Amino acid sequence: MIIILVEPQLGENIGAVARVMKNFALSDLRIIKPRDGWPNKKANIMAVGAVDIIEAAKIYDDLPAALEDVEKLYAMSARVRALNKKFINLHNFYKECENPAKTAIMFGRENNGLSNEEISYAQKVITINTSNFSSLNLAQAVGIFCHGYYEKLYQTDKIVKNNDANATYAELNNFLQHLEAELDKKQFFRVEEQKPSMLNNMRSIFNKANLSSQEVRTLRGMNESLTKTD
Amino acid sequence: MIIILVEPQLGENIGAVARVMKNFALSDLRIIKPRDGWPNKKANIMAVGAVDIIEAAKIYDDLPAALEDVEKLYAMSARVRALNKKFINLHNFYKECENPAKTAIMFGRENNGLSNEEISYAQKVITINTSNFSSLNLAQAVGIFCHGYYEKLYQTDKIVKNNDANATYAELNNFLQHLEAELDKKQFFRVEEQKPSMLNNMRSIFNKANLSSQEVRTLRGMNESLTKTD
Repeated sequence: MIIILVEPQLGENIGAVARVMKNFALSDLRIIKPRDGWPNKKANIMAVGAVDIIEAAKIYDDLPAALEDVEKLYAMSARVRALNKKFINLHNFYKECENPAKTAIMFGRENNGLSNEEISYAQKVITINTSNFSSLNLAQAVGIFCHGYYEKLYQTDKIVKNNDANATYAELNNFLQHLEAELDKKQFFRVEEQKPSMLNNMRSIFNKANLSSQEVRTLRGMNESLTKTD
Repeated sequence: MIIILVEPQLGENIGAVARVMKNFALSDLRIIKPRDGWPNKKANIMAVGAVDIIEAAKIYDDLPAALEDVEKLYAMSARVRALNKKFINLHNFYKECENPAKTAIMFGRENNGLSNEEISYAQKVITINTSNFSSLNLAQAVGIFCHGYYEKLYQTDKIVKNNDANATYAELNNFLQHLEAELDKKQFFRVEEQKPSMLNNMRSIFNKANLSSQEVRTLRGMNESLTKTD
């Protein structure tokens, strides 16, 4: 996936774009006439660990030069305007994108976006749904785009390993029986007929917590401590 | 949906957070101890047209104070650590979020995120999948979160009503403080240095259980009963 910035004004934004691209495994950054020239110190500072993206960025004098090897160009625009263009949302873009390495998304200037001429190079316009206050920062727009794309690529959940073993039902039931016995001793269950439903509630509370073995031991320890009489 | 920033360092980031929140129709911003004090001129400048969000932001001295009316708290974290917490991705968060007005997402410091104690207040941890270069800028993380939430709002219409009211953090903390006091009386915390991490574990156990107000009352009743001496 290729990210094209058309005449970006602030080096900070270029740096932030590079950083968020790298967060989501993108690296092909192309810039048309950055306002403050190139290289740009502020871009490097804001890129933090993504200076490699900044250093590899390609700089062009005009849009067509940046498109030589591009198969499909999409324009990102907040405003839906009276252009004879198809507007699609992010979701549909991800669905239809077939050859990411040859697909480019262009983002306009911070103050006034893309010109109609620039948009005329695009096959479609992508919009990000916003509230009526629709003034997304340039790097935010790129970030939302890149994140969505990355999610599409890796739709599966990361597998999160937890070192602490889950409590078995035996451990939990053991604890609950112990708790019940203690509560019995203290006449907690005043109305005998209500005891089963109260036990259900107790069981439910501790089952919902998805406890580890260690946590069940902690709870046991707490109960033993609470019922201690010295 | 409530956005909580825990000790944010840069006013610029706070402003960028406000701006992107407004783009996606969120407005409840809470800040725990902003490093450079409050109000912060840089935050106002970066917020652009979202100064209203900055001006309405609530400032707190500690996390529990910000949670009084919150029913569910999620922590946003890039790192998956060995905590006994459930990690979910954004998609699953949007699916399970039932009462956005009482749901808060907390984001940590720019340089070192959230502490284990802070995370112990959360029911689950949300992660944003990234490449190995996982250093998302604070405002980018908030932006990605808010955008996804906004998209979800306008895609689904299911509101799941639960008859039994969720416990607020005030109710749960009340119970936990009571429990801590009782355990103190019984010398449960034998090694003073271990007390904070034991308290984190306790808090974590009961936060994971996603308790209703009624369930918290049941737990209180059980504790009172267990500590009774006749």
